[in-house]
Amino acid sequence: MLSSWSANRFTGAFSLSTPIALAPMALATGGALSAACARAGALGLVGGGYGDLDWTRREYEAAVTLLEGDDHALSRLGCGFITWKLAEDRNALDWLLDQPQKPAAVMLSFGDPGPFARDLRRQSIPLICQIQTIAQLPQALDAGAAVIVAQGTEAGGHGMNDLDGRSTFTLVPEIADALARRAPQVLLLAAGGIADGRGLAAALMLGADGALIGSRLWASTESLAAEKAKQVALLATGDDTARSGIFDILRGKNWPECFDFRAIRNGLHRQWEGRVAALRADPGRAVQDYLEGVRQEDYDRSHITVGQGIGLIHELLPAAQVIVQIDEDARALLPDRHRD
Amino acid sequence: MLSSWSANRFTGAFSLSTPIALAPMALATGGALSAACARAGALGLVGGGYGDLDWTRREYEAAVTLLEGDDHALSRLGCGFITWKLAEDRNALDWLLDQPQKPAAVMLSFGDPGPFARDLRRQSIPLICQIQTIAQLPQALDAGAAVIVAQGTEAGGHGMNDLDGRSTFTLVPEIADALARRAPQVLLLAAGGIADGRGLAAALMLGADGALIGSRLWASTESLAAEKAKQVALLATGDDTARSGIFDILRGKNWPECFDFRAIRNGLHRQWEGRVAALRADPGRAVQDYLEGVRQEDYDRSHITVGQGIGLIHELLPAAQVIVQIDEDARALLPDRHRD
Repeated sequence: MLSSWSANRFTGAFSLSTPIALAPMALATGGALSAACARAGALGLVGGGYGDLDWTRREYEAAVTLLEGDDHALSRLGCGFITWKLAEDRNALDWLLDQPQKPAAVMLSFGDPGPFARDLRRQSIPLICQIQTIAQLPQALDAGAAVIVAQGTEAGGHGMNDLDGRSTFTLVPEIADALARRAPQVLLLAAGGIADGRGLAAALMLGADGALIGSRLWASTESLAAEKAKQVALLATGDDTARSGIFDILRGKNWPECFDFRAIRNGLHRQWEGRVAALRADPGRAVQDYLEGVRQEDYDRSHITVGQGIGLIHELLPAAQVIVQIDEDARALLPDRHRD
Repeated sequence: MLSSWSANRFTGAFSLSTPIALAPMALATGGALSAACARAGALGLVGGGYGDLDWTRREYEAAVTLLEGDDHALSRLGCGFITWKLAEDRNALDWLLDQPQKPAAVMLSFGDPGPFARDLRRQSIPLICQIQTIAQLPQALDAGAAVIVAQGTEAGGHGMNDLDGRSTFTLVPEIADALARRAPQVLLLAAGGIADGRGLAAALMLGADGALIGSRLWASTESLAAEKAKQVALLATGDDTARSGIFDILRGKNWPECFDFRAIRNGLHRQWEGRVAALRADPGRAVQDYLEGVRQEDYDRSHITVGQGIGLIHELLPAAQVIVQIDEDARALLPDRHRD
């Protein structure tokens, strides 16, 4: 990676060679993908997700093993968790904090990061807080976040539900303004819809220090998403996703109601649109249908977790190639001062 | 206006001095606002909206009168209409097409522009088509659109309903890619969430040739929005809006179900969230409540039509000052080649 972003605060703070963080996507961002991104110069956040200890241990250790001997890349390895789930079971976080290879950062999303912030602070591990509204900013700052991720509703996977859903385009500058007033040392990443160099350049224009990238790296060779799901997703346009609680109900996930989930809007999803309350009240048969879809890898019944940026993604690539391409394309668009 | 955007296709095509179009906001974008924007170097589109002949005639004529003697500014005056409403009554469009002061462009949003395109083509009036999804692009190109406006769900007023709602950040580059393949001569404007120079710069990074700006110019001295509504809106954050069919039901507007409406999420809106079907079935009492709110200028019951960009807007300014500020701030952020 020949890029130079010495004027960028995010690359400086985390010894990166590009202002990109890999989104810690539950079950997709495993050790191989995190290691590949860290080696390519980005922040590689393992998808600790629901905080399953075995999964987190296996994938984090796999990344450490893959990066053995490359101290620079190892220093770019971190992990992300779903905050409300940690409140139920924090074993995976505790395991991580006991590791000799200290994470470069821990990212917490969806819930109050406060209860976990002190343990990170004690070990001087930077806290990255992902938020979806301006209203959530004080809680993240109170917890001592070093980095705020402003996640727009176009993102794949979980986010705020429809009526609260802020989009990346206005959320990023509004949070940038609030940080400039209240916590100018805190860094800001844009998330949701950033899938190419144009998106990274636009995020920087809007006031972000960098971008957290999900779907584009989900659709990489190293991602743990099912190969057939990746192939189906590559055919989708950005119109083909929707946000709702439907797949969480079908999967039996007890997400707080303020959050919902963006995925490809497939046949099973369409079947329950506008009838979410009925589905919640009596999910039995629909769950059977969904589980059968999962078993058969029938993606008209099983979920594919990508955001609206999927319409910009047309081929599977190794993660390193994705990172290089986004970096080069963004640098070609930006004025020199971003990359002196 | 000292800016130079000679490398920009949109300013070139419409003899503008800045790549900005004023959104033709129904009932807010009158003659004074359109004239001020045209004089400031932007494309000034009168808000023909629902196609009320008297309103459109009065405001378009007011703009022409205000710009008398300034041929350059007059050449930047156009008009916008709600397409499905024109299909019911096209008198306002026909009146416009009979005027000696030919509009610089006619913008059509929300419906099939086909039936009106031929009359525009005959008079060599450029057609601007606003769309909300990639799926709508072929229809707009078939109608002969010279400019596509890619409107993200963060925009105020009407747009696609929640489940179909594309955001600006991914819709713009996806449409830019489709245009590059299929109709590279067609220009592209970004709409939805662009309220300052950062937004304009980001829109250009994403592949747009310019931006259509609503809320920021709604909150101007010349806008016909009620003064008290403007003051209330200035206090809102971007979290404080929502998209639904509620206010259309309360106003008795027969919008097709694929569209809904973003406005400030006030008390009356919250009261009906999740109960839209019930409201539609029996709107009587709620309509009384709403009309009483309108009469009393009680904005907890009456609607204020702004988008998520409202969180970036903190003062009322004359429209010319808004345009100059956005233009200057964007130019300061962009590399030289955008503005040689």
